[in-house]
Amino acid sequence: MKVKNFISILFLTISTILVTNANAQDGWENLFNGENLDGWIQRNGEAEYEVVDGEIVGTTVAGTPNSFLCTEKNYSDFVFEVELLVEPNMNSGIQFRSLSLPDYNNGRVHGYQCEVDPSERAWSAGIYDEARRGWLYPLDLNPDARKALKMGHWNKYRIECIGNSIRTWLNDIPVAHVIDDMTSEGFIALQVHGIGNNKEKEGEQIKWRNIRIKTENLVPDFYSDIHVENLVANNLNIVEKKQGFHLLFDGQSTDCWKNANTGEFPEQGWQVKNGVLTILSSRQDSSKKGGDIITKEEFGPFEFKFDFMYTDGANSGVKYGLGNNGPSIGLEYQILDDEKHPDAKKGVVGNRTMSSLYDLIPSSKERRFTKGPNEWNRGRVVVYPCGKVQHWLNGRKVVEYTRGDNIYKALVARSKYAGFEGFGMAEKGPILLQDHHDTVHFRSLKIRNL
Amino acid sequence: MKVKNFISILFLTISTILVTNANAQDGWENLFNGENLDGWIQRNGEAEYEVVDGEIVGTTVAGTPNSFLCTEKNYSDFVFEVELLVEPNMNSGIQFRSLSLPDYNNGRVHGYQCEVDPSERAWSAGIYDEARRGWLYPLDLNPDARKALKMGHWNKYRIECIGNSIRTWLNDIPVAHVIDDMTSEGFIALQVHGIGNNKEKEGEQIKWRNIRIKTENLVPDFYSDIHVENLVANNLNIVEKKQGFHLLFDGQSTDCWKNANTGEFPEQGWQVKNGVLTILSSRQDSSKKGGDIITKEEFGPFEFKFDFMYTDGANSGVKYGLGNNGPSIGLEYQILDDEKHPDAKKGVVGNRTMSSLYDLIPSSKERRFTKGPNEWNRGRVVVYPCGKVQHWLNGRKVVEYTRGDNIYKALVARSKYAGFEGFGMAEKGPILLQDHHDTVHFRSLKIRNL
Repeated sequence: MKVKNFISILFLTISTILVTNANAQDGWENLFNGENLDGWIQRNGEAEYEVVDGEIVGTTVAGTPNSFLCTEKNYSDFVFEVELLVEPNMNSGIQFRSLSLPDYNNGRVHGYQCEVDPSERAWSAGIYDEARRGWLYPLDLNPDARKALKMGHWNKYRIECIGNSIRTWLNDIPVAHVIDDMTSEGFIALQVHGIGNNKEKEGEQIKWRNIRIKTENLVPDFYSDIHVENLVANNLNIVEKKQGFHLLFDGQSTDCWKNANTGEFPEQGWQVKNGVLTILSSRQDSSKKGGDIITKEEFGPFEFKFDFMYTDGANSGVKYGLGNNGPSIGLEYQILDDEKHPDAKKGVVGNRTMSSLYDLIPSSKERRFTKGPNEWNRGRVVVYPCGKVQHWLNGRKVVEYTRGDNIYKALVARSKYAGFEGFGMAEKGPILLQDHHDTVHFRSLKIRNL
Repeated sequence: MKVKNFISILFLTISTILVTNANAQDGWENLFNGENLDGWIQRNGEAEYEVVDGEIVGTTVAGTPNSFLCTEKNYSDFVFEVELLVEPNMNSGIQFRSLSLPDYNNGRVHGYQCEVDPSERAWSAGIYDEARRGWLYPLDLNPDARKALKMGHWNKYRIECIGNSIRTWLNDIPVAHVIDDMTSEGFIALQVHGIGNNKEKEGEQIKWRNIRIKTENLVPDFYSDIHVENLVANNLNIVEKKQGFHLLFDGQSTDCWKNANTGEFPEQGWQVKNGVLTILSSRQDSSKKGGDIITKEEFGPFEFKFDFMYTDGANSGVKYGLGNNGPSIGLEYQILDDEKHPDAKKGVVGNRTMSSLYDLIPSSKERRFTKGPNEWNRGRVVVYPCGKVQHWLNGRKVVEYTRGDNIYKALVARSKYAGFEGFGMAEKGPILLQDHHDTVHFRSLKIRNL
């Protein structure tokens, strides 16, 4: 069914391309005239940009921050292409829909960046939100694409922005797909990353050529089955739909949910407001508690995406693998204010901290990929048919284990769940959102069967 | 260095092949005349064998044991080739150097079998010791080769037996390499596996054609870098040498070892006899204890192969990852008589049983791949540079973990090793053989750096 649907889209797209082809061929505009930097303006750092043999050459300079060679014009919807040749020890990127505003950090260039990353991490063509939200699409989300950059060769980047859909390709390999509506228009810029005061890193070069853009008669390129990172609240993108996702919360209705014990949605303790599903604190008055809620639907292997925002000192969690030990005993993606809630210090080696498999496996999250209280975090749990399970946080894989294998059994046998026969092993069960008396917000709850 | 050596062998082999080629071309003898089964004799079960269109066709029959169509002649050193087409729901195999003796199980065909395995397990061209020792070379040892069998196609098998070296290929992919000297000569036989009394499995077919053998002017085929399962005591095969293995015990000298505490080899408690290194029991008189011994050499990432034979109720172990918590605290490949030693019931979920990572991860061994007391087991520990660690038992992978990852830390933190800082994480250290007061035998101790 999935393949069939993709093929339908594909034919639709091909047909549209054929119809619009005559215009499309003519629609490209060169952004670089091959001779000088007319139409471009350098901002922020003072790395060197020059034109040599029909190419723009950027060179690292010590003691200056990130530098950006920016188009004078702004662009909204477009397809942008560039070829680039980068030396191994530098970092670069292509800004798009980017801004430099006097009242934002003294004109600091900020916004979407398509990464150029020759390092071992190899996240080239991943999407970073420069000087704003940080990584939106790290290549944990598309590990196969980490091989796309070819060192010592010209690499062809393509960025497609149409409406809220942002996609990248590197050497024709689909790399990233973000759905976002934070900034709809801005300049394009070629970055030379700062190198601090490290004189040894000075003189590294990146070259750009064949820089062109198309802004009219745009048609989305073929869709591929890569992960979609959708930052628009309670939204399902066309690709997510084709991948089989459906919303468990559309911003208004709680129809998919019920109290884990009563079978009815709680009359108090949970609130829907402005597209957000919220657990209201019952710390002061536990009679106000709404209790854990579970999906009415049950799931075998699944992929569950969820945004969550905890408040100061809060505790909550997303549970799965439920049903064979009562309604609330199962595997838990922990949600916690690690700084302020005492449970973060309990358990062992941090296995009760945020995004851990509660009391079993600590999350390997890094601070820079972790949002604090009152900010949205992007959570994700994937339970594969083969038994492999993953916890994700903001595009990074932070926990991976195999449910039911010998390591799993050994972990459970020395955890607080030791007494529960077949703990977490239910073949099918609901997803649970835990009411732990604290205010925690959820949105963009979406799931598919795997 | 390794590659260079392989190339040397390769050229040597090519040269020899060129010299002997004139004879080799003529050296093939057809074992099947294409018309009838002259030269063959059926033994044991009564599956159907017939000749159709120049092919031998074997058909499963219910209510009869394994059937074998055997050559009348015996063969010792040879290269054997056959093409076969097998239906998906049956099991078959090619016996070689096999025997049928009145005083061995009433003439039961036994000996080496090159497996034909269309099942999901996909161990085709692995080596099984029919009606004798069981699996010698399961394809855990060469997982890439599990794809070699092509269903719906004719598959070309090749078996090379020269001296104690036994090798198989399937569709020109090197699959198994066993060094063994149990039987040097016997017949070749085409198996149709029994199907019990299951009438539904009746009528499954396998076809054989182009069956030929060469017995003179034999030259070993190119060597490839696959795992070698060497069953000859304290022996290093040419390929193992090229892979970098060296013996830690040659059957006589204990020069590579010393007491973990004194630094000298123990004057009592350990014995070398008939090529076997033995811990002598000190249960009755603990003053006779020799104590743990460790290698004088230290190892970073390594592959360690060892044969061990425990006696009734015995306890011992192979330790590694040692040095940062005193001489004897580290990771342990447990050696134990699970049936009779009480420690097997301690710990959790069997994580103190034989071949487990002691007190941390239980071995996933199956009974049919486990030898009892007073029989040789083939152990193996592999510590990869990336941190992955594996325990093997008789050719099966029974434990796999990543040293130092979050799961490892969580396991250690709730084990008897919780109090040891950096437990098991020493970057370099010796291998230790544990003297736990019980008689346990070792041989074929060999190691290489990875």
